[in-house]
Amino acid sequence: MNNYDIPAGFRFSGVASGIKKSGKLDLGLIVSDQPAACAGVFTRNQVVAAPLLLTKPRVAKGKCQAILVNSGNANACTGSAGLEIAEASLNLLSRELQVPGNLISVASTGVIGEQLPFEPFIAGIPQLVKKMSVDQFSIVAEAMMTTDAFSKVASATEGGEQNYKILGLAKGAGMIHPNMATMLGFILTDAQVNPELLKSMLQQAVGKSFNSITVDGDTSTNDMVLLLANGAADSAMIEPDTHEAEIFSQHLDRVLLDLAKMIVRDGEGATKLVQVRVVGAESEESARIAARSVATSALVKTAFFGEDANWGRIIAAVGYSGIDIDPDRIDISFNQVPVAINGLAVGGEQEAKATKVLQLDEFVVTINLHQGSAESSYYTSDLSYEYIKINADYRT
Amino acid sequence: MNNYDIPAGFRFSGVASGIKKSGKLDLGLIVSDQPAACAGVFTRNQVVAAPLLLTKPRVAKGKCQAILVNSGNANACTGSAGLEIAEASLNLLSRELQVPGNLISVASTGVIGEQLPFEPFIAGIPQLVKKMSVDQFSIVAEAMMTTDAFSKVASATEGGEQNYKILGLAKGAGMIHPNMATMLGFILTDAQVNPELLKSMLQQAVGKSFNSITVDGDTSTNDMVLLLANGAADSAMIEPDTHEAEIFSQHLDRVLLDLAKMIVRDGEGATKLVQVRVVGAESEESARIAARSVATSALVKTAFFGEDANWGRIIAAVGYSGIDIDPDRIDISFNQVPVAINGLAVGGEQEAKATKVLQLDEFVVTINLHQGSAESSYYTSDLSYEYIKINADYRT
Repeated sequence: MNNYDIPAGFRFSGVASGIKKSGKLDLGLIVSDQPAACAGVFTRNQVVAAPLLLTKPRVAKGKCQAILVNSGNANACTGSAGLEIAEASLNLLSRELQVPGNLISVASTGVIGEQLPFEPFIAGIPQLVKKMSVDQFSIVAEAMMTTDAFSKVASATEGGEQNYKILGLAKGAGMIHPNMATMLGFILTDAQVNPELLKSMLQQAVGKSFNSITVDGDTSTNDMVLLLANGAADSAMIEPDTHEAEIFSQHLDRVLLDLAKMIVRDGEGATKLVQVRVVGAESEESARIAARSVATSALVKTAFFGEDANWGRIIAAVGYSGIDIDPDRIDISFNQVPVAINGLAVGGEQEAKATKVLQLDEFVVTINLHQGSAESSYYTSDLSYEYIKINADYRT
Repeated sequence: MNNYDIPAGFRFSGVASGIKKSGKLDLGLIVSDQPAACAGVFTRNQVVAAPLLLTKPRVAKGKCQAILVNSGNANACTGSAGLEIAEASLNLLSRELQVPGNLISVASTGVIGEQLPFEPFIAGIPQLVKKMSVDQFSIVAEAMMTTDAFSKVASATEGGEQNYKILGLAKGAGMIHPNMATMLGFILTDAQVNPELLKSMLQQAVGKSFNSITVDGDTSTNDMVLLLANGAADSAMIEPDTHEAEIFSQHLDRVLLDLAKMIVRDGEGATKLVQVRVVGAESEESARIAARSVATSALVKTAFFGEDANWGRIIAAVGYSGIDIDPDRIDISFNQVPVAINGLAVGGEQEAKATKVLQLDEFVVTINLHQGSAESSYYTSDLSYEYIKINADYRT
């Protein structure tokens, strides 16, 4: 547990409040000693869960001191009753913590369309406040889990003059067509960052990580990523267009990409982590569209599960992605093994070598369009029997 | 076999030529005694298989007398060698049949990226020609199968003055995100139809059937639907904007919808046929987008397999479909059982009743947006363990 770098000035706790009938952890709390600068990225789904209706306007004001998260119930499609319960839990925490309600964010994940009970919060919130501790971040990561097979934590440290840490907690399990498993991410740093810069850096980092494992816009009713910077490390303010901003951005990107890869690896029933890398594209946007088309193809993903170097399915997924291509110039390789050159099978022993690559836990599919120099990557998993089992039985 | 209505003036045959290593039927032939008026709809995938490169320009000229179809190999991503083999098979058939090559269409379905061998055609084509018979249409339907669990035939008869028949043969198995399983459809009639009308009626019928089970534009490298009208019934020419055209169109729509439903029911591993019907939409287009979003959601489809009336996944799929909605006005029902009204759970005994509906082999999900009066339907299947098995092991 001490392999992670914990930013100063944050405390954490988690309890089993009874929202999950299994008796597992289902309520988590993150508190900063001081109000932190804050930025957020939220679902683009038009069906928005109750907690987001409260959290979005609060985060928009740029300040946050505490995050309350529950699992087991998404509090989505629950109408005005659901909104009242989210508000009541926020107000209860505000009183117990002695922190103004406008500095509290709430988040939920779990089943949609069932009313969230309030009783668990009445018992759970005082316990959460009593148990807060600087090293209990992993308990919060656990309390966020739904179909997750493991909790997700990543961190980074900047030494030297700019002495700060970044800690990321996330939940989510990758999907075929990743349109509904809620993704929550809470990123905490004791650096001091210009609030506008915080926002743009978060958006950029989310684009290259969480939004490169899910289809843009095709998000759950509950997705959110919050970034809190409380300045407790006492280092100088990080300002836009500086070397320090660039370094912070690199650390942030890495923490988010680490978390995103964990989500793919924890893909419901996933056994492999595959980077789909499109190079030689006319633009980054067209590379992204092609990579996404391949990464979300159920046929490509089942071929990965079957350890079948079926590049025909890959080239077909590029073909229907919507970007302009010249099929006769496309090269495809698995790690360093070419399986198709100029749109034709390489065949022979390359096929056997490629099959060996597919037997690995983690590999890269590179698709060269030979149209330009832009590139983009999507991260995906294979599609296995387990996926069906997990999702068919989810509510039972 | 005699439950189908066979149009006059067509002959059929099928053989096992050896393209399929299993020794199953893999080569089929349809021949009209006279050149027929003809229309076609083809894949929009930019990666186009060799046979389509030959068939598309021929069909565009509006005449066709014979269709040669093989299964077991798609002859896609096979470059100039693949094109030469397609041409050679077409020329061989032309000589054997004594039918000009420009009146012959060729079609292939099967694995992508492997060279199609020519030897099977050398032995197979003379046999095909020798075996032609007026009642062997079901052999052709069998010879087109790949992962299909059953062959697909549908027909219609118009009695009275306009005395003609329509016979449809198809192959294809529905998919999660139906982006690659080749769909072939050959529709034959002995009616006499104005060639321009033939084209527009086919496009319309495909839109309401085959294109309402697959995502528009997200098609395989080999998809094609051909409609041949040979006029052998000796009834009067059907002209645009007439009562006769309307009747023909209705018969055609039904034959195609019957075939499309069979494809969904034969969805790889499917156990249920579900009509996703969006009503109360502002436009047919927005209804179609919402229906497609629900029908292609892997989470919705796994819930169907789990017989779970999980309307939360359905409303979320409408929410990310991209159309403007008011979640608080949406009603959802399974057959006649309402599970959500105004975006909220109905709960109580309705949930138990809905679960009973989900246990049926076939049911309708109706989503009322309460925004207007337009509607559209998509047909989908559930997503089961079998799907993964079939597609993971496809090439092995």
